[in-house]
Parts: sequence; C-alpha cells; structure tokens
Amino acid sequence: MRLLECVPNISEGRDREKIRAISEEVKGHQGVQLLDVSSDLDHNRSVFTFIGEPEAVKDAALSLAVRAIELIDMRGHKGAHPRLGAVDVVPFVPVQGIQMEDAVRIAKEFGRELGRLGVSVYFYEAAATSPHRRDLPSVRKGEYEGLAEKLKDPLWGPDEGPAAFNAKSGATVAGARFPLVAYNVNLKTEDLALAKEIARKVRFKDGGFPNVRAMGVDLKDKGMVQVSMNLTNYRVTSLHRVYELIKEEALLRGVDVDGSEIVGLIPLRAIEDLFRHYLRCRDFSIQQIIEQRILEFE
Amino acid sequence: MRLLECVPNISEGRDREKIRAISEEVKGHQGVQLLDVSSDLDHNRSVFTFIGEPEAVKDAALSLAVRAIELIDMRGHKGAHPRLGAVDVVPFVPVQGIQMEDAVRIAKEFGRELGRLGVSVYFYEAAATSPHRRDLPSVRKGEYEGLAEKLKDPLWGPDEGPAAFNAKSGATVAGARFPLVAYNVNLKTEDLALAKEIARKVRFKDGGFPNVRAMGVDLKDKGMVQVSMNLTNYRVTSLHRVYELIKEEALLRGVDVDGSEIVGLIPLRAIEDLFRHYLRCRDFSIQQIIEQRILEFE
Repeated sequence: MRLLECVPNISEGRDREKIRAISEEVKGHQGVQLLDVSSDLDHNRSVFTFIGEPEAVKDAALSLAVRAIELIDMRGHKGAHPRLGAVDVVPFVPVQGIQMEDAVRIAKEFGRELGRLGVSVYFYEAAATSPHRRDLPSVRKGEYEGLAEKLKDPLWGPDEGPAAFNAKSGATVAGARFPLVAYNVNLKTEDLALAKEIARKVRFKDGGFPNVRAMGVDLKDKGMVQVSMNLTNYRVTSLHRVYELIKEEALLRGVDVDGSEIVGLIPLRAIEDLFRHYLRCRDFSIQQIIEQRILEFE
Repeated sequence: MRLLECVPNISEGRDREKIRAISEEVKGHQGVQLLDVSSDLDHNRSVFTFIGEPEAVKDAALSLAVRAIELIDMRGHKGAHPRLGAVDVVPFVPVQGIQMEDAVRIAKEFGRELGRLGVSVYFYEAAATSPHRRDLPSVRKGEYEGLAEKLKDPLWGPDEGPAAFNAKSGATVAGARFPLVAYNVNLKTEDLALAKEIARKVRFKDGGFPNVRAMGVDLKDKGMVQVSMNLTNYRVTSLHRVYELIKEEALLRGVDVDGSEIVGLIPLRAIEDLFRHYLRCRDFSIQQIIEQRILEFE
C-alpha cells in the first residue's frame, strides 16, 4: 500500500459552515481518508489531515484548495498565526511505500495546477527551488500584508502562478516534508526561564539535536512549564533522545519531568527507536507489528 | 474494522509440498490474509498465522483443518514438540474491534464442525469448558501416544467429536486467547544456571509476574544465555516490565543484558505501555498512530 499524507493549513478557523464545506471536498474523493480537522479560533486557521494513494491525495488537495479560495477572502482576515494566503501551507508527507522524491513531484503538480487558477505559489522544504526557500518561516516572512511587495523582489518571484498580487487569495506555500512530530515535555516547576534554557539545550539552532525546534512555554493553569517541540525528522532525532536529554537537564537543575505528550498523530515508524533503545531490541522493525502486515497486503 | 487472528499449529514441518497445499487453503478465502508460515524440521511442525473478518477466518481455519487431516497421518509422526494430533492447536485471537467472547464463539463453532468430521476436539484457554482444561500443557499431557487412554478417562472426554480414538488424526485443541508475545532477553554470560535463576524470578509460577512463562536457554553459538518467555497477556504484564526486572536481576549478579528480541508478531496495542512508561506519555494511545486511523476507517 502506498500512502501519502497531506496537511493543508487554511486561513479560516471560525466560520463552521465554511470549514465544513471545505472538509466535504476531501470526503468526496475515493481512496482518501480525512483523518482530522482542527480549527483554532485565535489563529483563525484550520488544519486538515488526510491520507491515501498519492494521485487521489493530490486531487483531493486541489478540490480543497479550489473551494477554500472561493470561500475565503484574505482582505478581511485577522488571526494570531502567521499566514501568506487563504490556502496557506500545503505539505505532502510520504508515510508508507513512497519516497520523498515522489512527494516532491506531487507537490509540484499540485502547485502548477493551483498556479493556473490564479494563486501565486512558492515551493518549500524538499520541493524548494532554491536554498533560501526551504524554510517555511523565511517564505512566509512579511506575511499576507507584505506579499505585494515581496512578489516584486527578484529573490521572491513565485514558483508557479501570477507574479501579480492576488488580494483575495494571497499566496500558497506547497511542498514535501517528513512527518512532523509535535512533542512536548512538561516540567514540575513554574520557572519559565528554566524551560527556555532547556529548550535551547535541545534545539538545533543553539547547538542541540538536528531537526529539533523547541521553545519554553508557560502552562499557567497546570502550574508547570513546558518544553514544546517540533521534530522535523524523527529518523534523525527520535523522541526518546530529546526526552532523555530534557529529563537529564531538568534533573541537573533539581526539577522532575511530569510527563510528555504527543500532539496529533505520529507515523508507526517513529516507534522503532523506542524498542531499540529502551528494550535494546536492536533488530526490531515495524514489520513485526500485526497491523503493519495487514496494511502491506492492501 | 474487525480483525480476528488464527494461529493453527499443524503436525507437519518437513514435507514442503503438503505444507504448501495446506497454505493454499487459507489463501483461497477472500477477506483473509495469510501473514506467516513457519515450519520447523526438528519439531516437525508448522505454524500458520492468518487474519481477517471473524467469519472468514473461521471458514479458512476449517478449510486448512480439512486439508491437514487428509494429508497428515499421525501414525507415522515423529517430532520434538509435544502434540496431540494432526491439527494440533487452533487458537483464535481477538486483535481489533472484537471481544474475547466473540473469539470464544468462533472457536466453539470451529470445534463443532471439526468434530463432525471425526476429529476429537478439546476446548482450551478462554473457550475451556472446565478449569482443568484451560492450560494447553494439561490438555496435551500424554501426547498423541497417550490419547487413546486419555479419551477413556471420565475427566478427559472430548468437548466435540468422537470419544473413540482416531488414530490417523489424533485430537485437536481449539480455543481463544489473548495475543501471545514471544519475548527473549539475552544475557552476556555463558552461565545457564543464572538464566534459569532469573527465569524463576520473572515467571508467575515461581512468584513472578502474572501471565509470564519463562525458562533459561543456552545460546551456545552466541556464547550467551537467554531468558526465553511467553507473555500471555501483554495488557497485564507488558514487555518493559519483564525487561526491566531481568535487567536489574542480571545487574545484581554482575551481568549485562546484551539485548532483547520479539519472536514473530506483536499487536500494535503492545506498544502503548512503552510510551507510557519510558516517555511518561501517560495519555498515549494507539489512536495517535496514523496507520491505526487508516485501519479503523476500513
């Protein structure tokens, strides 16, 4: 079974009727399963997660995008989360039986078709056409409000679609990336500075592990602080590695770990390192999971 | 998706043509997937693992049994493994979306139909009709060679099929049980007595964990010893619990764990306790695994 995941982030998180209508577009595609829809009122943003055969997933993403640019007008959009357009980010994620290069090809086909519909498109991550476009924050810098200017910058011409500013839809950032694991570790202290200090120990940009982004967060209602992370490649840096480092750094400061949490979904492959590390089960593979065998037969 | 697993153990492990013919019977059933066939020359025994919708799995198990009693004659059978008949043991295992009582019902229907074909049938584990028949070793005690006598014992009349001894096919033990996890921990020593001592610490019958059977084994070609285990209910006693106890008991004796291994397949549910224990991920559930979501949609 070949499985590609798509996780479009759309700039509408409040109007339930519109969100429902956009979801329906995905459900209409055979061979595609809509796993999750999460909307955030403050961010005014919704995240759709669906999965299936690569071509079917691309078609579903296009249907979703067409509906979203019809229903969303960026000229009235306000929200706490950075965004560039109505269909803000569309990552394609290889999950099973599919290579990153195939996900890149799908992302580029998606971008080309969306461009034809009048939306400026940038490619990012593994689909980026230039190194300075790899990171999403760089591509999204200036946000929707700065997009008209950005498009005029020779460094920031679109990869697909019009170079002219589309005021209603803004731009879309499409690409291919590894599954992202959102992973948080909670510490039994109210000392936010301590969480921030440990976040710096674990994150790549300050000398920590590769493919880890981290920040310290105050969990006021729990009376705790949190090291909140995105692991952008769990094969390079796995959950147990960041957990153990954080636990050790906290203990050095006399603080215990309360617990950890995975936000959203993780791919099955992410469990392999747990078996190998904690149980010294060096040869463990997800081929030993009954359910994995069933998926492979399909 | 409702998934029942069936793991028949057949008294033929040498004649490849016969094993192939028996496998074909399972493959012919729609909605059933044959995940594995393992044959052992010394044991002269093959283990088939297949999975699917409950009714389809029962039908496939019957087809397999019919073919096996046709092809196998116990009067000529020799092998190192204890056995009672040609179709020796047929456990039905609830994997997803199905309760133990449903697996018991399927096992009893299977046994009734096999009994009609002239094979004496005992029910064991969750399908047992009396407490002294729960454990497989008790039911199998005396083996094929003692079966004619056993059937005459008022305590050991068959649950289904003829009370008279069927010399060609022997008897079949059918039942329902939890997924069994075969789990081994290797120790960096050649001291077999030490492995046996630790096996006693961990196994239930000598005061260890419930649902754990264990023995010490010599791995001569590796220059190590092994604590070899069957975990008969991974929800009661999970992998990490036995691993940690063995590691600690070994360290107390100045010996390191080399590694551990899972033999065969484990159900996805068995990973939950790993996340909860090692990462203190208390709320972790397999619902957070992408692949699990896909299975549930089917």
